[in-house]
Amino acid sequence: MKVIELHKSVTESNDRDADALRSELKIMKTFLINLMSAPGSGKTTLLMRTIRDLKDELRIAVLEADIDASVDAERIASAGARSVQVHTDGMCHMDAGMTRTGLEAMGVGDIDLAFLENIGNLICPAEYDTGAAANVMILSVPEGDDKPLKYPLMFEKSDVLLITKTDALGYFDFDLDKCIERVRRLNPVIKIFPVSAKTGEGMKEWEDWLRENTAAWKA
Amino acid sequence: MKVIELHKSVTESNDRDADALRSELKIMKTFLINLMSAPGSGKTTLLMRTIRDLKDELRIAVLEADIDASVDAERIASAGARSVQVHTDGMCHMDAGMTRTGLEAMGVGDIDLAFLENIGNLICPAEYDTGAAANVMILSVPEGDDKPLKYPLMFEKSDVLLITKTDALGYFDFDLDKCIERVRRLNPVIKIFPVSAKTGEGMKEWEDWLRENTAAWKA
Repeated sequence: MKVIELHKSVTESNDRDADALRSELKIMKTFLINLMSAPGSGKTTLLMRTIRDLKDELRIAVLEADIDASVDAERIASAGARSVQVHTDGMCHMDAGMTRTGLEAMGVGDIDLAFLENIGNLICPAEYDTGAAANVMILSVPEGDDKPLKYPLMFEKSDVLLITKTDALGYFDFDLDKCIERVRRLNPVIKIFPVSAKTGEGMKEWEDWLRENTAAWKA
Repeated sequence: MKVIELHKSVTESNDRDADALRSELKIMKTFLINLMSAPGSGKTTLLMRTIRDLKDELRIAVLEADIDASVDAERIASAGARSVQVHTDGMCHMDAGMTRTGLEAMGVGDIDLAFLENIGNLICPAEYDTGAAANVMILSVPEGDDKPLKYPLMFEKSDVLLITKTDALGYFDFDLDKCIERVRRLNPVIKIFPVSAKTGEGMKEWEDWLRENTAAWKA
């Protein structure tokens, strides 16, 4: 398994780099999702379940970004997707140049659906366009229903919100309706899927969204 | 309730500012704790319980740092401590200059124990000395026992680790012994307190640490 050590991108023009990368991915017919969340929200577990469910239909790859460690890339590879680990040299986010370096090292020319598993952080990743076709964020039930109030930019920048660990709704004091209302006030067009990778609840709706949007990107 | 809007500190010399602030707090006999964690780890809930348990012995104040919103400061005030909310203008961490601005607005000359509730983020806050006398971090059980592998600097920089939501240990796949071993490999001298603000388990040990260290700072 490859581990790529990343350093600060040389270029300052991240938005331009992001647009260029997105255009190339469109030509290559690779639908890239930038997956963002707080640490410990269950990004990797959700991805593993998604990969297992879709791997016979779509060719999937995952670019794992972490400050350190390679535990996630090893888990993803065991689920049956191509996976490369990138280390961000202490940086708290991925930008378009770093994403390009990782994708080039992994090779995505033959891939239908690629995920960038961004650094666990609800703040900085929202400020950098990675070149992905869609931004997807995860909020897990144990984190609390007040997170839209505290990290508004992340909710504003996301196309899809996955509310994960819904199997734990009975255990934690999390008001799903109130949470969704807070999110919609920030972002009226965001798609919201409550899911549990443990029980499978809601996974079909999320996976149908992936099927449809991957097909639309390739069209 | 006051809300302070913060902007980037004018000075670049954060380490020097932090040392100066620490010296002044020593003279004022105010023990300042920099409390750091991921979003949704339960920092505010833990603080509320701690305040309720200690408010008859110690004069306590809390500086609440968030990118946006003031929900935490309102909760803290209801628990019986002086509280001021600072907004960081989108920034992902607090530095010494921002901490000083907040403390001056709040007034801590008559305070024994002050908490800076830092931005919910396991990365950037670890890189900035705030001028606090001690760094305390929270890792909550739902976040997972692999976090020391992925965010090592935060564990290295902390004097105390609170492993919170231990009441949920039966619900999540979290190996407490393995987690503690991973933390000790990064930081052999860190104090570790497994606690539950819900059941009260472990709170006495944490509060005894606060009593002893506040007294030592004032001596």
